[in-house]
Formats: sequence, structure tokens, C-alpha cells
Amino acid sequence: MTTKTSRKGKKEFNVKFLPFDASVKVSSGTILLDAVKKADLPLKTTCGGKGTCGDCVVQIIGGAYQSKQSAALSDKLASQGFCLACQTKITDNITAQLPQFRELTIKIIVDSRFFEEQKDRISGLYEIDPAVKKIELDLPPPTLEDNYSDLKRIERELQKKLSLKKLNCEYSVMKKLANAVRKDKGKISVILFRSGNEETIIDIIPQSEGKKLYGLTCDIGTTTVALHLVNLSNGKIESTVSSLNQQITGGEDIISRINYAQKPGGLRKLHELIILTINNLIEMASRSAQIAPSDIYYASLSGNTTMFHLLLNLEPRYIREEPYVPTFNEVPSILSRELGLKMNYEGRIHCAPAVGSYVGGDITAGLLCTPFLRDSKKISLFIDAGTNGELVVGNKDWLVTCACSAGPAFEGSGIKCGMPASEGAIEEIKMLGSGKLEYKVIGGTKPKGICGSGLVDLLAELFTHGYVDRHGKYNEKKAIKKIIEAEEGKGFIIEEGKNSFWGKNLVITENDISNLIRTKGAVFSACSLLLKNVGLSFDKIDSFYIAGGFGQHLNVENAIRIGLLPDLERDRFHYLGNSSLLGAYLILLSDKNSGLAEEVAQKMTYIELNTEPNYMNEFTGALFLPHTDIKLFPSVRQIFNY
Amino acid sequence: MTTKTSRKGKKEFNVKFLPFDASVKVSSGTILLDAVKKADLPLKTTCGGKGTCGDCVVQIIGGAYQSKQSAALSDKLASQGFCLACQTKITDNITAQLPQFRELTIKIIVDSRFFEEQKDRISGLYEIDPAVKKIELDLPPPTLEDNYSDLKRIERELQKKLSLKKLNCEYSVMKKLANAVRKDKGKISVILFRSGNEETIIDIIPQSEGKKLYGLTCDIGTTTVALHLVNLSNGKIESTVSSLNQQITGGEDIISRINYAQKPGGLRKLHELIILTINNLIEMASRSAQIAPSDIYYASLSGNTTMFHLLLNLEPRYIREEPYVPTFNEVPSILSRELGLKMNYEGRIHCAPAVGSYVGGDITAGLLCTPFLRDSKKISLFIDAGTNGELVVGNKDWLVTCACSAGPAFEGSGIKCGMPASEGAIEEIKMLGSGKLEYKVIGGTKPKGICGSGLVDLLAELFTHGYVDRHGKYNEKKAIKKIIEAEEGKGFIIEEGKNSFWGKNLVITENDISNLIRTKGAVFSACSLLLKNVGLSFDKIDSFYIAGGFGQHLNVENAIRIGLLPDLERDRFHYLGNSSLLGAYLILLSDKNSGLAEEVAQKMTYIELNTEPNYMNEFTGALFLPHTDIKLFPSVRQIFNY
Repeated sequence: MTTKTSRKGKKEFNVKFLPFDASVKVSSGTILLDAVKKADLPLKTTCGGKGTCGDCVVQIIGGAYQSKQSAALSDKLASQGFCLACQTKITDNITAQLPQFRELTIKIIVDSRFFEEQKDRISGLYEIDPAVKKIELDLPPPTLEDNYSDLKRIERELQKKLSLKKLNCEYSVMKKLANAVRKDKGKISVILFRSGNEETIIDIIPQSEGKKLYGLTCDIGTTTVALHLVNLSNGKIESTVSSLNQQITGGEDIISRINYAQKPGGLRKLHELIILTINNLIEMASRSAQIAPSDIYYASLSGNTTMFHLLLNLEPRYIREEPYVPTFNEVPSILSRELGLKMNYEGRIHCAPAVGSYVGGDITAGLLCTPFLRDSKKISLFIDAGTNGELVVGNKDWLVTCACSAGPAFEGSGIKCGMPASEGAIEEIKMLGSGKLEYKVIGGTKPKGICGSGLVDLLAELFTHGYVDRHGKYNEKKAIKKIIEAEEGKGFIIEEGKNSFWGKNLVITENDISNLIRTKGAVFSACSLLLKNVGLSFDKIDSFYIAGGFGQHLNVENAIRIGLLPDLERDRFHYLGNSSLLGAYLILLSDKNSGLAEEVAQKMTYIELNTEPNYMNEFTGALFLPHTDIKLFPSVRQIFNY
Repeated sequence: MTTKTSRKGKKEFNVKFLPFDASVKVSSGTILLDAVKKADLPLKTTCGGKGTCGDCVVQIIGGAYQSKQSAALSDKLASQGFCLACQTKITDNITAQLPQFRELTIKIIVDSRFFEEQKDRISGLYEIDPAVKKIELDLPPPTLEDNYSDLKRIERELQKKLSLKKLNCEYSVMKKLANAVRKDKGKISVILFRSGNEETIIDIIPQSEGKKLYGLTCDIGTTTVALHLVNLSNGKIESTVSSLNQQITGGEDIISRINYAQKPGGLRKLHELIILTINNLIEMASRSAQIAPSDIYYASLSGNTTMFHLLLNLEPRYIREEPYVPTFNEVPSILSRELGLKMNYEGRIHCAPAVGSYVGGDITAGLLCTPFLRDSKKISLFIDAGTNGELVVGNKDWLVTCACSAGPAFEGSGIKCGMPASEGAIEEIKMLGSGKLEYKVIGGTKPKGICGSGLVDLLAELFTHGYVDRHGKYNEKKAIKKIIEAEEGKGFIIEEGKNSFWGKNLVITENDISNLIRTKGAVFSACSLLLKNVGLSFDKIDSFYIAGGFGQHLNVENAIRIGLLPDLERDRFHYLGNSSLLGAYLILLSDKNSGLAEEVAQKMTYIELNTEPNYMNEFTGALFLPHTDIKLFPSVRQIFNY
């Protein structure tokens, strides 16, 4: 890198941006955020460069810079070279890592009780017969009378153990076959991949090398990406990790991502960002489970249709242009190396089948975790309250589905103190009569923030105890010191800085509450419209299955209190957690489940809610706590004596 | 590149070798051949560095050098930077291209009469239904009511034209699918690859781009590589080219190639050389047919088992170590890009199935060109007189096969004036009573050399007219000026320099004759032993099918005269030419033929001749003209009155 002096006598510097292969030249003193814009790279900023939102955080890896201190950035991060791009002047040739979400890749502590509950629910589908298998062979030594080729001798021994219809062998395996077969005198581990009636040899390893066989399952959410690392010989989940989807710098929802992809190089960038996100997760999960990424031979992925298009580097624009035609619903088998995923060279990728542009593989995978597919009499409703919300109503014989744009609030995104359900997150909150909060933190540390389930509790408690009115505004009359005037308007202090992990107050603002209400309103009104469309009312629904990024728990009482769920007998509700991830796990374990997901996808009928004339009415009515029409929530009405 | 002065005051130069990524530093004045050896690179030399054989020809691409003139190198080549490595001193930093066989890539003029004869013979198998097909679709525009994915809509239209069982789609196609479908409003050409019950979409192109669909068929001989470029819509051969196998610098026969592959980096070098050879052929054939290599989607290859192992970069050593186990007999489907062949990115490679280590895919392909597989009563013998000779005896119900090391003499290699059957080659020779030769040159030019069929004629005529005795020695008594003392011993002048293409005498030496006799002896004795093994004699064989690199003709009378073929009724003999190439062509045209070749391969029983106690006796007996046991050749005996 060289420093040049421009015509006007001002020095010019070179700014290199990672993880992209991009550089720009700017004059001395340029604000880093402007350099990012000049390079046409994605970087989120909510406050418009005021240094308050903290969204434009980047890490300077090389070179000097001048950065203003900001409340939005902890000293701990600042000391590691993190800075806000909008508050940083360029005074040298620098290399900046953006977006720096690597540290947001986190290990999730899975509550074993929660997982056992989930396992009970899916017990009918819990079978370990994955598409990728390890078979141990002991080849008899060849002789002059029996000198078939190595490949033929392997096929002959496999035939004794499996009923092979057609056997293929990958070229990469052929290249090492002769020596692998001879190293341990015929004792080999053969890794097979099954597709339909065919088996393909995707690896051969001398047994003395003790090859392990792992798979992974990954839910690619618009906001959050979660991953299980799974031992394929016993189905055990060895590690669970989660991260923000680094694409978030290219827009928060599906539509803005699709728009971003239309910029020159935009699609490639979004593709690279999701691959980077998943690779970071694979790296962390592998390290935690003490395996090599090359031990991972199979990935079962779930996600919405847009996320899959971006993952696969496919043109997404026709998803949002009428008549909303995606490139695919069922993705053909793809190799990990074609995408650049850190797995075995011959790793296989399975993508859960989609219904259409707006109901994706996350939903078909999620439905595997419900009894929808086994019951012809009772009708159930499935709600996935993700950034893009999807709903399914029906039973074994019929399924109708729709989508709504809910927003990422319940995943802890777009909320000042929101965070994913990982170590340090407040997951349960109870308000005592005194207004004092009791809460439970995942991992038992000082709180870092609040995850979805905690936010539902918090909003319900603030509302119940009169701190927040039906419009989601703070009640001026409750003039106690917990309600403060923050930079972004009024806020409620959940925990003071001295007791929090990062040393800063945990505050929920009116703006945050308004985000939460919009999200719950979008979900509730979509449920309501969907049922009207199929001629049913809420009370005709036998079971409600709720999925989303809330965490491992959801207080149904509180969810009804804020109007997220309808006011019915509490035992009709079942919280699934991340059903998309769990469904992908079922598909990973057995390719029979993959076939089942395809059936489900083909059975679903999609209806478009946006074209419904009542859509805006329904939505607006739901923007209250719990709803404009309080008659819909008799148990809430009773509490407040409306 | 820099010039350094070594400690002793002698300048050091850098020598870079193409096509390898190899360089060495040598002191000024070093002989280039020694530099090649220092770099451990393959370069053939027969005369041991005397400047007479001309085998070590290389081309200097950059830098100065001092080279002695040599009779073995024409002035024309010398003026183009060609030099003999053993006669060249390094006096500068140079870049040398070795081996420079690119100019030996030649276009073959196929005699249409010969091809029609071949076509008649294979008429039962001549069917155009290749594994790769182009289907034209006109997709109806999607609507809100019919907004299936692009892939699904393509599948639906394909279903109307084909009976699809399972449809796959390559990832590279998915990436361009959305835009390809929309460019011509749904008018697309779909390229499909069929394997078993499955079809895979390997390309989709808007119809306005007018995509052409080509295939190629290539016979990879130990010495010679020949290639047809074929229009897959009508089966027409658009271009035929041929070349020396550039691996020849790593040894002339299979055993020396396998040995070469054991050197560090040796296997990779041989692999690269055969890929280079084929890519040069593809380039020339494409240019000649005016198509782009990316229009080539399918390659049907034939070759012996060692050639296939080297082509695929597979460890070949176990082929020659008891119990002679190859990695594969049937090669799974491979992509052209995995090998680095200049074809479409999604090009598919088919390798003809082998019987074992010493009877390869060239033989199963070759057998497709005979009536062996259609007749249960009559017994036939198939002879492929290549560098590695292979024989098959049997009929529809049984097939027994063996191999022998024949040598490349009939392909024109290892013979001073030998050359492949291309433009400038003498292909027919007749000696008049006066001792004057009448000959026919391919393409009607001045002669450059003699191809296999011409060599058979020449040897027969020299023998018949008494210039050569039964031992293959020149007859001293015929002291006419045509027999000269050349540097390599006695020689016979076929044509004087003033009448030859390169301006040099065309001479056949005693050494050449001895090579030809060894080759014909190996083939005849192997035939004889094979028949004894199955309890048959020559006269029980109804038909003899002779294949090899002789050219487009073979004078059966002369082949019997020199003892290459047994002395039977002439109409029992049928000359096939390059049956391996023709068989690969049949496989290219229809994958039914590929299945047939697999059946053939499985039906053949291999017997090992080398372990036969009589092998050396039989071989030694055949090292005479026509044979020690003249009773075996009554018609020849009659001519000479023995």
C-alpha cells in the first residue's frame, strides 16, 4: 500500500475492506462510513451517522485511525480495535474488517429438559438412518485367481452388507483408493451417500485413521442462523451454536436483501456473507466438539426461499416480482465445495423443500415437528414468528399456508437491549408488586441483554403493572425513577449498569415497545385472516404450535396478555422453539423424513394475504395491547376490569 | 530471471521448462539434455546423446543458445527454434518447450470408402440416441395461479416430451436458470445427461443463442491418440485428428510409464501430458469444425487400463505388481473439469469398461465393431496390434482374451522413417521386377514417411524380392545402390531426398526391420498360444478381425507373407482400422452400446500368456520371415520353393 498526495495537497490513503476483496482510495480525514459507502459495501446504520445506534461497528485490523468515544461501544470492544465507522476518521492506510459479527457467533447451551420435550414430540420420526453412512469393510486379499479391481472388490463386500442397486464412486475417492485399500491390508471405512436407489462412495479411509462421521443441521434465518453439529452414528447433538446472519448489513428483511442483490456485485456479496456466517458457526462448533470440519459429510439446511436463493448465489429478483416465481422449490443435491462451505471435500448439502416464494423450507421442516401429519380429525395451527412470519393451518388431509412480514423483534434484533437466546440473555422476567423485576439469565451470568421470551415477559409485565398503556406508551403517571428520558425518547431501566455484564444500563425504549407490538400485531392479524380465509375461527383450532427465536421457553400466559396469541385454554398451546432447526435435524437423521418434507411441501396450498382487502384493518386492530377489540381477550379484560 | 556468477567465476543461467512448472539453475555451457535430467523431467533419447536419433528435440521459446547442426533435424525446424537437447549449449537464461509434439497433432483425412465399410459392419449398432441430448422447450408464461418454480415448470414441459423418472439439475445451471428462462420469454434449449433412470440438466440456454451440441470420441493409445469430433444431433463426424501421446517422453511402453509414475511427481506429469495431448487435439478439431470447445458436452474414451489410470491420475503400480489389480474396470461417470479437459464446464466423460489390468476398454470398445456378439456358431479371432497387443477369441457365448507386448512399430513409431497414417505417409508399396518401388502417399504430397500398412508392404516386398532374408538381414549379394551403409548400419533407400517432403532420404534400416519382425512375431505367437490354450487351431477360426494403427488399409497377402497373419483363405480376414476409436464412437452415439460394452467386458475371461512355459519358444519361432516352421505358411513356401 502506498500513500499518495492528491492534487489539492491532501494526502490520499488506501482503505481495504475485509471480508470483501474491495479497496478504495480516500483523502486524509475522510469518515470511514463514507469510505464504506464509496466502496458500495453493505453496512447497517440506524441513527444516520450520529454515533448513537452502534450499528456501524467495524474492526480496524491494520493502520492508524482517530475515533470518537461513544456510549454505543463498550471500552472493552474499543480496546480491541472496534470503532463506529461514523465516528472514525481515516489518517493512514487501513484494513477494516466489516461487518465484525464473528464475535457474535455464540455457543448455545441447550436445556436438556427442553430437548427431551422436543424429542418426545418427534418420537415417531426420530430414527437414525442418515443418507450418509460409514461402513467398515475387511476386504479379503486379492489373488491371481481373484484379481478383480479394487472398486469391484469393495462393491462385492458392500453387497454382503447392504442391498445395493447401483453404486457410484466419486473421482476424488478413486484417486486415493489404491493406497487406502492397501494401507491396513484391506481394512477400510467406506463413507456412502444414498440418493434414491443409488449409493455413492464419497470417501474411503484406512481403518487405522479412525475416521469420524459428523453431520450438521443449520437453520438460515433472515436475522439469526443456528447450527447443530451432530454425530451421525448415534444422532447425538455435540454442539449448538448461533449467530446473526451477517447479511443483515445488506438489509433487515427479505425485500431489502433482494433489492441489495440487484446492485452490481450485490448478490455475490450477500452469498459470501451467509457462507461466512455458516463457516464461522462450523468452525466454532467443530472446535467445541473437538472434531475437524473435514469430518462433516452432510448438511441438512432449512431456511426461507430467499435465504436459500442467496445461499446458492441464485438471482432472487423474481421472488418479489409478480407472479413470484422462485428458481426452485426442491433444491437438487449440491456439494459443499460448490458453495465453499467448510466441510469434507465431498460433503453433501440438503435443502429442505419449499412451497413457493414466500413459504420456504423452514416451514416444511418445522411442520415435521408437529402432529399435523398424523391426525385427520383435529385441526392445528402452526405459527413461525420469525423475521418473515409463516402460518399453516390444517391436518393430515389438507394444509393451507400464508406468510407475513413480522420483523426480527422476537429474535432480539431491532431492540436496543435485545439479543439471541444465548449465555447472558434474560429469558424470564417477573415483576413484583413493588415494581422490582426478578429475572433469570441463561448461564447464570450478569445480564447482557434480553432474548425473545424475556421480551414477551417484560412487555406483559410492564402492561399488567401499568407502566405501559394499551398503545404501548409509557404511563406518565407512573413517575418512578425506572422510567427515564434516554436519547431515543422514554425508556424503562431493566437493570442498572453496575449489575449488567457490559457495565451499561439495560433499557427498553418506547421505540423498542413499538417494534414488539408491530411484530406481535403482524403475527396475530395474519393468524386471524388465515382462519377467516378457510372459514374457521380460533376456537375451532385444537392445537397451536408456536415456533420462533424466542428461546427455549415462552410464557403462554404473557404471550396472550400482549395479544400475540389468542385467548383460549392454555393447554392448547405448544411451544416448539426453533422448529426449522429441529426439522432439519430430523431430515439429517433419516432421509425418510426428507421424503416426508417433500410430501408436506407438495400438499400445502399457499394464499397471499397482502392482496386481502381486510389486511390493513386487521393489522391496525392488532397494534394495541392486547387488541383494539378487547372482547377477543376475555381473560385480559377480566384482569384490567375494562 | 537473473544471471548470477557462481563461485568459480562461471555464469549461472536459469532454464525454465514448459509445459511443466519446473526450472533449474545451471552453469554456462551446460548441455541442455543434462539440464533436463537435472530437473528430472522426461525426454526420450535413443542414441544416447550422439545427435543422431533426433528424439530429444525441444523448442527454445526465449533466450539465446548454441546448437550444432544435425542431420536428424531439418533446417525448417531449426529455423523455428527447434534443437536437439543433446547438441545444445546453454549460454543464456532460456525457456524450453519440451516435448514439442504440438506440431505432431495432425488432421486425419478419412477415406470415405473406408468409413462406409466400417459403417456397414456396425450397422446393427449404429443408432443415434446419445446420453447427452438437446431438447427445445417453449415454457408457457407463469401466472399468479400457476407460479411454480422455474425448475418445476421446466420439469413439467420435459415430462410432456420424455418419460422422466428422476430429474436432477446441476448447480451451475441453477445459477443461470432464472435469467436464461426469461431472456427469450420461455424459449430455451435444455441439455440433458442420462444415466440409468435419471436425467440431469447440465445446461440451459436461451434459444436465440443457437447452442450446438457436440461430442467427442478419443482412443488413447500408448503411442498414438486419435480423436473424432461428432455432431450429436446427427452423428456426423465433423473432424478427425491424431497425435503422438506426449507421455512417450516418459517411456515407450506401459511398463516404463508405470515405472516413470513411481518417480516423485511422475504420475502427475504423465497425467498432465495426456491431458495436454487430448486438449491439443480438441483445439485442432474444434478449429477445423469451427465450433467452440464449450459446445462439447460428452466424451467417449477408450484406451488400455494403464492409459486410463494415467489419464485419471490414479496410482498405476498395482497394475504391474502381482496379482495385477487395477483400481477400477468400469470407471464411474466423471466431469471434464475434474480432469481439466477443454470441453463444456459440465462435460461428461465416459470411459469404455476394461476386463482387467492387461485387457482394457480399447478392446471391449473394439469388439463392438465385430460380429462376435451376434453369432453363436462361428468362432472368430480379434487381433488389436497396438503397442500393447490384445487378442480375443470366441463368439456370442464365450470370449477368451490375452495380451502381449507388441511394440509401436505398426503405428510408425520406433521406425526411422515411420509415421502415423496421415498426410504425407506412404500407405501402399509395390516393388516392380526392376527393384523400383511404386507407392501411394496419403493426400498425394511428396512422402514424409511410411505408416503401418506401408511398412507391412515394404517388408513383404523386400523379402519377396530377396533384398531381405528370412532373418531380416539385408542380402549382401543384392549389391545394388539402394542398400547403403548408414550411420545405424545397413539401410534400404525407399526414396531419395530430392523427391521427399523434408528433403532427406527415406531409409529403412536393419534395426527398423528387426523392430517390425519382433512386433509381428509377438502378435503371431500370442495368437498361436491363445488358440492352443482354448484347444483350437487356426483353421477352426471362421473370421479374423484385425485392428491397429496400420492406417486405413492393410494388404492381407503381404501381412501373411511376413508372418503377421496365419496362411489361410484370404476372405477370412477383415481389417478394422482403429476399432477402439470406432467402438468409442458407437458408445458416444448410443448409451445402449455402452451397456453392451459392459456386458462384453464381464463376459471375457483373461488368460496370462507370460506364465506359459511355451511362450519364449513360440515367440522365438516367429522371429523369422514368415516363421521358423515354414510348413505353417504353405502359400509362402510355394512362392519361394523352399
